[in-house]
Amino acid sequence: MERRIIEFLKENKETFISGEEISRKLKVTRTAVWKHIQNLKENGYEIVAQPHYGYRLAGIPDKLLPDEISYRLNTKIFGKRIFSYVSTTSTNDVAYMLAEQSMPEGALILSEKQTKGRGRMGRQWASPPGGGLYFSVILRPKITPTEAGKITLMASISIAKVIRDSFGLEAVIKWPNDVYIGREKICGILTEMNAEQDGINFIILGIGINLNTAPGSLPKGAASLMCKTKKQVNRIEFLQKLLCELELHYLKIKNLKFEEIITQWRDLSMTLGRRVKVKWRSNLIEGQAMDIDSFGALIVRDDFGFFHHILSGDVSVMK
Amino acid sequence: MERRIIEFLKENKETFISGEEISRKLKVTRTAVWKHIQNLKENGYEIVAQPHYGYRLAGIPDKLLPDEISYRLNTKIFGKRIFSYVSTTSTNDVAYMLAEQSMPEGALILSEKQTKGRGRMGRQWASPPGGGLYFSVILRPKITPTEAGKITLMASISIAKVIRDSFGLEAVIKWPNDVYIGREKICGILTEMNAEQDGINFIILGIGINLNTAPGSLPKGAASLMCKTKKQVNRIEFLQKLLCELELHYLKIKNLKFEEIITQWRDLSMTLGRRVKVKWRSNLIEGQAMDIDSFGALIVRDDFGFFHHILSGDVSVMK
Repeated sequence: MERRIIEFLKENKETFISGEEISRKLKVTRTAVWKHIQNLKENGYEIVAQPHYGYRLAGIPDKLLPDEISYRLNTKIFGKRIFSYVSTTSTNDVAYMLAEQSMPEGALILSEKQTKGRGRMGRQWASPPGGGLYFSVILRPKITPTEAGKITLMASISIAKVIRDSFGLEAVIKWPNDVYIGREKICGILTEMNAEQDGINFIILGIGINLNTAPGSLPKGAASLMCKTKKQVNRIEFLQKLLCELELHYLKIKNLKFEEIITQWRDLSMTLGRRVKVKWRSNLIEGQAMDIDSFGALIVRDDFGFFHHILSGDVSVMK
Repeated sequence: MERRIIEFLKENKETFISGEEISRKLKVTRTAVWKHIQNLKENGYEIVAQPHYGYRLAGIPDKLLPDEISYRLNTKIFGKRIFSYVSTTSTNDVAYMLAEQSMPEGALILSEKQTKGRGRMGRQWASPPGGGLYFSVILRPKITPTEAGKITLMASISIAKVIRDSFGLEAVIKWPNDVYIGREKICGILTEMNAEQDGINFIILGIGINLNTAPGSLPKGAASLMCKTKKQVNRIEFLQKLLCELELHYLKIKNLKFEEIITQWRDLSMTLGRRVKVKWRSNLIEGQAMDIDSFGALIVRDDFGFFHHILSGDVSVMK
């Protein structure tokens, strides 16, 4: 009911709506309307009550409320189910557990903060509360484990594109999974999978974006979008755009149009054409980053002219 | 204590040991010895009690008892922890759950029967009670998801070798994961993993072998070792040998000596050199099975001379 009241108020954002009209429209008593309005206010909604005029929605709370995320969300898969936490160990862990219990593809798990946020290769991912966007999506693509890199690539493209389109900032991708603005990391991606050799059972796509995070609470080398735009970013709007973009690119993978993703990735990459150093366990390869292949592996040509297809490792771009 | 009594009786299998001697040796009362002996008998141990002489171990139950499996088991990793079930859904499921809870590498999970035994690609794996060997091992190799096929290959080699060495039967491997004797399938392997793009968190190596299974309870195309040897196979002995063999080959992968495994695999393969048909989703490739590559992929040359490296799919050997 509260959801319906908010939707009604949203549709009439410019004017006051009387309690009587709400009560008539939604078929509840005026006392019930009043009670729901009080609840909504407690949840952070700014609702102005003007005697003789009624109610008007003046502000939406800066919370990752499922109702706000799904309001007019234009997707068919991503975010059709939403689980929003104030705090959790890691949204990837929750998503993994839900996926094991047959939760369908597209389910979205968010948290205002993570107590054990993880990055690639068991590293920590700083997840302070206050303006970050930490979420995971359950995916069930019919691909092999070797192709899992495609999901990471399509996610990094989607994020870079939404940042570019929304704020005009030059977001670039560092292979395979980081989004940078200038020299600072804005976003990380952690793709985890449950698979057999023949195919993936499910993938958890985990994304952490520093949206409005205060610079002081971020590690060195990281920045938030707010630092760059100099104003608060609307998290819900950003998330909705991102979910649409992710779905768009995900469908390309499903429809075997990965070549389109590679093309876009090339345009957004800060790695290609540069001299790079790749570390992977005891291996160290230095050379020119040439391209990515049809599995999403980075192709590096070393100084002897040999080509290496690199599916995992730490890449640093040299000056 | 019962374990120690059994070990003591085993060490003196040829003679009778008096209750007094056991009580002195193990520092328990004679009444306690008597009680433990009763328990052991109830668990299926055949213990002959002769007045004035004492006890003698005449038979060990045909059960997958952890104490029997670990008795003089000569491994450093495989089977250092054992979980034995009378019935479970699937030993892979139990192993997966334990692995998520940080169970160390080498833990062995067995069951007398599986109610939801699984094969590759979501297929069923018949797991009737009565003489089968269904087990899973938790592994934590430092390899990438693309290399997971190595684990399947090394397992199939180990199984084929133990069958050959123990019974002189011509066990062969059908790529990637089945062990055959003649035209009948004796064993299947299901490798499942939890991974990120950069590396595997853990692998569950699941093995199902028809040892003493009655032919009537097996699906068409399958046979048990007992059908071939015409006598009961000692399950514990077979398992112990197999665990040693698995560990030997597993260490080769860990020590980057996969080439040795490939060499052995070539010798045991029923697929190489034959004309094969490979189905994978909507793809169908027909050609000559040439070799396997350094990732364990099957290399097939089609009739146009093109080479295909196949990491997953259904292979049928043509006549």
